[in-house]
Amino acid sequence: MIFDHRFVTLTGGYWREKYDLNRDVTMKAVYDRFDESGRIAAFRCDWKEGMPNRPHIFWDSDVAKWMEGAAYLLEKENIPALEEKVEALIDEIERNQHEDGYFNIFYTVVEPEKRWTNRDCHELYCAGHLMEAACAYYNATGRDRFLRCMMKYADYIAKVFMEEHSAAFNTPGHEEIELALYKMYKTTGEPRFYELMKYFLETRGQPDNHEAQIFAAPHYAQSHAPIREQHEAFGHSVRAMYLYSGMADYAAESGDPVLLDACRALFEDVTRRKMYVTGGIGSTNIGEAFTIPYDLPNAKAYTETCASIGLMFFANRLFRADPERTSAYADAVEREMYNGALSGLSLDGEKFFYENPLEINLTERHRITATNDGEHWPIAERVRIFGCSCCPPNLNRLLPAIGDYFYAYDESEGAVWVNQFGTSVFERDGVKVTQTTDYPMDGTVKIISNVPVYVRIPGWCRKFTADRPHDDCHGYAKFDAGEITVTFEMKPFLLAANPRVTPNLGRAVLCRGPIVYCAEAVDNGGGVHTLYFDRTRVHDARVSRVSGIPLPVIDLDGLRMEDTDGALYAPLDERFTPAGIRLIPYCCFANRGESDMLVWLPVR
Amino acid sequence: MIFDHRFVTLTGGYWREKYDLNRDVTMKAVYDRFDESGRIAAFRCDWKEGMPNRPHIFWDSDVAKWMEGAAYLLEKENIPALEEKVEALIDEIERNQHEDGYFNIFYTVVEPEKRWTNRDCHELYCAGHLMEAACAYYNATGRDRFLRCMMKYADYIAKVFMEEHSAAFNTPGHEEIELALYKMYKTTGEPRFYELMKYFLETRGQPDNHEAQIFAAPHYAQSHAPIREQHEAFGHSVRAMYLYSGMADYAAESGDPVLLDACRALFEDVTRRKMYVTGGIGSTNIGEAFTIPYDLPNAKAYTETCASIGLMFFANRLFRADPERTSAYADAVEREMYNGALSGLSLDGEKFFYENPLEINLTERHRITATNDGEHWPIAERVRIFGCSCCPPNLNRLLPAIGDYFYAYDESEGAVWVNQFGTSVFERDGVKVTQTTDYPMDGTVKIISNVPVYVRIPGWCRKFTADRPHDDCHGYAKFDAGEITVTFEMKPFLLAANPRVTPNLGRAVLCRGPIVYCAEAVDNGGGVHTLYFDRTRVHDARVSRVSGIPLPVIDLDGLRMEDTDGALYAPLDERFTPAGIRLIPYCCFANRGESDMLVWLPVR
Repeated sequence: MIFDHRFVTLTGGYWREKYDLNRDVTMKAVYDRFDESGRIAAFRCDWKEGMPNRPHIFWDSDVAKWMEGAAYLLEKENIPALEEKVEALIDEIERNQHEDGYFNIFYTVVEPEKRWTNRDCHELYCAGHLMEAACAYYNATGRDRFLRCMMKYADYIAKVFMEEHSAAFNTPGHEEIELALYKMYKTTGEPRFYELMKYFLETRGQPDNHEAQIFAAPHYAQSHAPIREQHEAFGHSVRAMYLYSGMADYAAESGDPVLLDACRALFEDVTRRKMYVTGGIGSTNIGEAFTIPYDLPNAKAYTETCASIGLMFFANRLFRADPERTSAYADAVEREMYNGALSGLSLDGEKFFYENPLEINLTERHRITATNDGEHWPIAERVRIFGCSCCPPNLNRLLPAIGDYFYAYDESEGAVWVNQFGTSVFERDGVKVTQTTDYPMDGTVKIISNVPVYVRIPGWCRKFTADRPHDDCHGYAKFDAGEITVTFEMKPFLLAANPRVTPNLGRAVLCRGPIVYCAEAVDNGGGVHTLYFDRTRVHDARVSRVSGIPLPVIDLDGLRMEDTDGALYAPLDERFTPAGIRLIPYCCFANRGESDMLVWLPVR
Repeated sequence: MIFDHRFVTLTGGYWREKYDLNRDVTMKAVYDRFDESGRIAAFRCDWKEGMPNRPHIFWDSDVAKWMEGAAYLLEKENIPALEEKVEALIDEIERNQHEDGYFNIFYTVVEPEKRWTNRDCHELYCAGHLMEAACAYYNATGRDRFLRCMMKYADYIAKVFMEEHSAAFNTPGHEEIELALYKMYKTTGEPRFYELMKYFLETRGQPDNHEAQIFAAPHYAQSHAPIREQHEAFGHSVRAMYLYSGMADYAAESGDPVLLDACRALFEDVTRRKMYVTGGIGSTNIGEAFTIPYDLPNAKAYTETCASIGLMFFANRLFRADPERTSAYADAVEREMYNGALSGLSLDGEKFFYENPLEINLTERHRITATNDGEHWPIAERVRIFGCSCCPPNLNRLLPAIGDYFYAYDESEGAVWVNQFGTSVFERDGVKVTQTTDYPMDGTVKIISNVPVYVRIPGWCRKFTADRPHDDCHGYAKFDAGEITVTFEMKPFLLAANPRVTPNLGRAVLCRGPIVYCAEAVDNGGGVHTLYFDRTRVHDARVSRVSGIPLPVIDLDGLRMEDTDGALYAPLDERFTPAGIRLIPYCCFANRGESDMLVWLPVR
């Protein structure tokens, strides 16, 4: 089963616009901020005590993700200025790599004597990101200088961890190297990298010789159990997604049914019990972590952009690993790509959210903060860089590789899965599938394929039509080769949350197609926290385009609960007046100044 | 303007039952717990270090309130066993009163050297409660032994505070003595007690020579401003109510219009911005305090029983002080007496709530506690005594004096205000008003009066009829002397909160007459947190009586939000199934074991 953006060309539409925005704006924006903050210069490894911009333990990974994104662009296009920047960074990596293969900025210039002493300090995580970047750059350019550095580094890591056991810990405190080593294996064809990946995965949950962690509980870094015994998502949500992605790679490669079952259980636990309607995961800022099932507060949602991207990684890999090939995996990817992952990027491509809340109530926030200073709130406007700026370069590498999620080609069956919709072409070994569509503006998708295709019927879709006969397979419609037109009804609809999500009792969210909508105060005079959906009027929703918002906005006839005469309590029916409600796609919120925002509106 | 239970006889109905329950059960229950815990023996003032039951700084006041309640009963009936207990306590007070007039158990036996050194330690508060009890006992029995002790104590306090200024503070950290001194003045006719009351009130908000307080902010004990400049309710809610009651007494006595305006503003701030629908006030456990307007969380409502009783004190006094005589004051009293104050007492009369929450969600509580140990939750079942057991004896003195709230007689106009409804007689100086009614079971009230009467039209009432012509006066219907039948429509109705009370958006509360209803899990299989009101079916509500609940229960056709197939998100209309909802009066909750409970249900 192949899914690889290298065989996919976005020929138009929404995702092509995002691809171009990243290439033309976001890549430069992230690089410039990294340059200003000393992250680029840090690769020279000449920082000394007393100089500004003391390197941080995860700076290598920030820049490595950006390099990986650059490599994906260079695959498709010749961009000499970009290539030059990457080459300059590789020069420094090559120059500053230790004799034994080690490369890590912090542990070279800040605490050189402390190499491999602190499980929490992201060395293997940084190594993993450099390896992913090296694989991408090799695939893009065919030049193996960076890849060779990383092969040497991986061999050194194998020696330290698998042979000498000389590190103060056995597995990384922040997972990432596992999935990176799988890429090293697939890119180089060298089984020793697969062996090292397996070592880290199989060692996880065994008694560790050094369990120093920010949070004492082993659950925080998914160290509480061997991988086959992990069935509930715990701890830091990004670490969890990266581990589960590595587990899914391992399950796909090994065919281990017990491991596959663990992956399925984890996917189920995340998407059916611990995921916001936007796809956001990891509901608490305390440890950036999962909490307990159905604990999904809106205004305090932590929902890191990286965690949403991580769930895309995991879901796509699990689709590959799971012979059942249900549409639930691509449904989860779609939820993220249109909502919780994409909301991390401003519409102008230059600013970022780390946290993606489902409600902003500036008044409530100020009044709660007045009585309790210790409260943590997500920021209400995107910024250009964070102290811990992992999310921006994660978007840099997601957007040029978004084709990974569109098509999956099963060589043994000779069929292609159409997992995501957008004007694009998949082409590989004479197999060709073309999509033409205005999705998600419109629900009609034209597909021309010279092999059989499985077309996903999205989980949100209540009415699906096709102009050709088809079989139903686990949420996909299977068609023979040829020209096919499918249509997904795009009428806006209201979703309710499971009643165990108590903050959403009495509330609903409006969706259209895969897109989750929200109300922003800037569009709704009088604020958003007194608006009510009128469920009898949702069928009259008006869908239109307005300038500045790249997806349709929706206007509804709703209600507003009035502060009648200042009364604290008043008869229910005397409280309401008709009110227009304008909704915008959630991923477009917070682009017009600080504003109250609400995803889950009360319903009447 | 006279309102005094001494001239009111409850001749039947709901409040007569509560009067009897207190006399027959609650008085004994509280006395026995106070006896077991050492509070009664403490009056012997023979405690020594190393002995059990070390007296606490507020024990005097706990017992004094019980004595006051006993006095109110002794006014009406000869109960020798009760009188004997009171006399025994007075014996000890007389015996242990210091030469100079001082009486305080803690500062006699535990820290005798620290008299008047700590503003927070309730000396003047205890003194006030003893004075209230002494006045009540004198009025009941005509015997002045206790009153004379307290006159001596008050004179000593005047000397220390007004002449010598020898205490480490100028005003009490916990108000109470102000309103007590007003009672001393009215009972003895001695203006010097009024002068001392004025001193404490006028000195409040002036720079204090010793501001030691549990909570540093002067707002906590209402010390932030002179009384005429206090327009917003701040700080500890019981302290606030007692202060405002004293201010209202002062305003009534003095006719000071600026002070009256301050009282009105405080009443408005409390009842229109900081009061639960049950009448509960003081929403946070942190300082048992008011927070900011509209901050009224349900499950964590602090809403101390004493604070609700305190609001009754304040509202009734303000009715006397305010020449406008609007019905808002008696409306507030009614809300408290049927809901937030009465919920402090179990139906069997033996157990008590200190906090009266509007929601109990045991599942949510356990899961939040699992992630944050520091959370404070109200208890879910009443107990027999508290460490700080101020609320039980406050009910002891409220219930036998409930007649205070029923009638107000304006001697100059020769008219009677009927403020509360219940079968009863008011009789004073040849003026006689008789009520016959099943209120609140039924909305019809028959009144026979030999003077003009103002009958309150409750704020909750949307349909009022009378068999006689009447004038409308600030929420009262004024009738000439004679026989009158008035009817308040008792159809259940839904109330909505002001939209600024964000936890109640999308929710409503069902009321019938003055009674706020709630749903308890014990009556609703499947729990209460998934129930929805169907607003189109509320008119079909069925009102009935069941054994064990002394007020009507209500059955409704509503809806339940289903956990359909465990789905985290599902189309709104697929979530609901019809469900019967049983509601019981809020004041009757938590009498059948620990159970989830909800006042504000979502509405569909």
